[in-house]
Amino acid sequence: MIYNPVSPILPREESDRQRSCQKGEESFTNSCSEARTSSTKSRQAERSTVFVRKPAAQKQTGGSLAVWREERESGSPRIEPPGAVSPAKRQIKEVKETKTTINCVTFPLPGEGPEQQLLKPDEWSYCDYFWADKKDPQGATSLPGFEVLLQKQLKGKQMQKEMSEFVHERIKIEEEYAKNLSKLSLSPLAAQEEGTLGEAWTQLKKSLHDEAEVHLKFANKLHTEVEKPLLTFRGDNFKKDLKKYDHHIADLRKQLASRFASVEKARKALADRQKDLDLKTQQLEVKLSNKTEEDIKKARRKSTQAGDDLMRCVDLYNQTQSKWFEEMVTTNMELEKLEVERIEWIQQHLRQYTTLRHETDMFNQSTVEPVDQLLQNVDPSKDRELWVKENKTGDVRPVDMDI
Amino acid sequence: MIYNPVSPILPREESDRQRSCQKGEESFTNSCSEARTSSTKSRQAERSTVFVRKPAAQKQTGGSLAVWREERESGSPRIEPPGAVSPAKRQIKEVKETKTTINCVTFPLPGEGPEQQLLKPDEWSYCDYFWADKKDPQGATSLPGFEVLLQKQLKGKQMQKEMSEFVHERIKIEEEYAKNLSKLSLSPLAAQEEGTLGEAWTQLKKSLHDEAEVHLKFANKLHTEVEKPLLTFRGDNFKKDLKKYDHHIADLRKQLASRFASVEKARKALADRQKDLDLKTQQLEVKLSNKTEEDIKKARRKSTQAGDDLMRCVDLYNQTQSKWFEEMVTTNMELEKLEVERIEWIQQHLRQYTTLRHETDMFNQSTVEPVDQLLQNVDPSKDRELWVKENKTGDVRPVDMDI
Repeated sequence: MIYNPVSPILPREESDRQRSCQKGEESFTNSCSEARTSSTKSRQAERSTVFVRKPAAQKQTGGSLAVWREERESGSPRIEPPGAVSPAKRQIKEVKETKTTINCVTFPLPGEGPEQQLLKPDEWSYCDYFWADKKDPQGATSLPGFEVLLQKQLKGKQMQKEMSEFVHERIKIEEEYAKNLSKLSLSPLAAQEEGTLGEAWTQLKKSLHDEAEVHLKFANKLHTEVEKPLLTFRGDNFKKDLKKYDHHIADLRKQLASRFASVEKARKALADRQKDLDLKTQQLEVKLSNKTEEDIKKARRKSTQAGDDLMRCVDLYNQTQSKWFEEMVTTNMELEKLEVERIEWIQQHLRQYTTLRHETDMFNQSTVEPVDQLLQNVDPSKDRELWVKENKTGDVRPVDMDI
Repeated sequence: MIYNPVSPILPREESDRQRSCQKGEESFTNSCSEARTSSTKSRQAERSTVFVRKPAAQKQTGGSLAVWREERESGSPRIEPPGAVSPAKRQIKEVKETKTTINCVTFPLPGEGPEQQLLKPDEWSYCDYFWADKKDPQGATSLPGFEVLLQKQLKGKQMQKEMSEFVHERIKIEEEYAKNLSKLSLSPLAAQEEGTLGEAWTQLKKSLHDEAEVHLKFANKLHTEVEKPLLTFRGDNFKKDLKKYDHHIADLRKQLASRFASVEKARKALADRQKDLDLKTQQLEVKLSNKTEEDIKKARRKSTQAGDDLMRCVDLYNQTQSKWFEEMVTTNMELEKLEVERIEWIQQHLRQYTTLRHETDMFNQSTVEPVDQLLQNVDPSKDRELWVKENKTGDVRPVDMDI
């Protein structure tokens, strides 16, 4: 693991427990997973831990991995303080050259800024691949990356439900088959066959009932051990939970949009103030007057104020974006874990299906064995003896009549 | 074998072939059976051989085994020739003490005459146990022993047909089951499941189609290898053949009844003549006259004639009874052989049923194996990788906005 383990993103109350998990880094994810409860109410407690390097901070620390929480806890702003230089002096264009804001989220431009490494390399983790919004084919609207993940969850839930339905249909087929076999088993056909052949035949007919029992047992076990677990895994609460995640992340995106609007407004106000100051400075060059110098001072103050305003707005925007980022990482990790659990649950229960199928074939074999045994014993001589004993009319042979 | 092999009852044209069979006595029945054709037209050729000791003849040879054909071929009558003694002198009552005639067939009375040994001891052969007629429960009518055997044959044919029907019903159940499995296999349920889990799921669905194929193959093989052979074994000709046997034996019984009536009539005529002679003899004692002496001579001649008449009728009766006896033995042996064949045929095809059932279970097992394999390969990480690669929106993380 190449993560810097200094500052995991953790809910405050979880940090102690999580930290103890960090000691054995290799088995870290598993041991932590086990320690967590699966209650959806304690969502915070379920979050996977990930060590997040905040890419923006890399700039500040000359490329070394700086840590978000450190910044946050130290209370230092996450953007460079304007310092003595008036914000108005900074060229907005200059900023736009290295970063771009799409749907209110700010990304580095390709080739600009230090190279980002994946949060969880080689893991194809959800937390690494869904930062941008997804444009729909028409390009008219776009879907947040998080929604793509939520749709995957909903689809997964649907698949699980459909598999359960499939198994249900299989159960119905087995029950119908068993019913028919059982019914045929009771048929009076050739019931009057006698002797050892009659015994073998009776057992053959009975074996259909045994087969029916095997298939009925299969159907019952399919119901309790496959259909039901597949159906009830993640009940009705699951979709509510997904909705909560959805609203939570969507709210943060709305907040980000609102903060972005404030930044834009403040940026425009600063530009206006800057323009006003420039105008007044030009006027000063044309004709010197106290009034103008006073105006310039006032304009500069206002420009500085607008700069401070913008700085504050940008700060708020960045704080919100950080919050969203944090929630995205933890929630994506959560969804990733849910998907692993879903796949393993389904795998486990489909395995149970094949186990039951194998069992059914084995038990089915055993229904034929007594028939084989009795067919082995079929003996025409014995049957003749039995039948003759019961049906003979007389063994005294006729003799010639005397006169 | 304790039979005296001197005089088998054989159709003349068969005797040479049969005699060659007798050499290996132990395997006799089998090797002869194989040598015979199964064509019902050559009924004579199909007849089993049995060495018949004629019990009535034992009396003549002082208890040693005398042989029916010997008597017949030598042309000697099978009853003691009346000789010089007038038949009228013999007491009918005396004869009735040792023999009884039931439904026109003559049997020795219990304890009278030499003990009969079974024609085929320890074999429970049909030819030993169906000489008497069977009284029906009401006692009003009686059924010839041969009819009991024919009914057994008809019932056997019916059983064979009903077993075929049973297998037909089983086939329908298998086809229905296969149809339902195949249909479910094509269901779109959870078709959108992705990655390694999707592959396992697709294979699981496909396995239902494979199962359906296995059951369809079972059904097809049941049809050609069990249902059809059971149905077509002994086709429509069989019942016709039984009817022929029936008519043949029944005709002989009718002939026997007619001969028996002739005997009774002749016996009455003789009694009448005897009475007439006695009357005339008494008249002679009362008054002597030429006329009377002439009458006595005439009456004695008529009585002797009536005695000869009765002797001839008894002889014809005994010949017919012998013919019936011979046909009963050969036909009963034939029916016995048919029953052995029926039982072995059914045994063989029910064995084929269990073999097919075993095969079906085995093939069924193999339909699950590819599912097991793919379930083994299910890998949530791999599935995430595949899905993320296809659905990721962007791996560039947001950065702080600059002013």
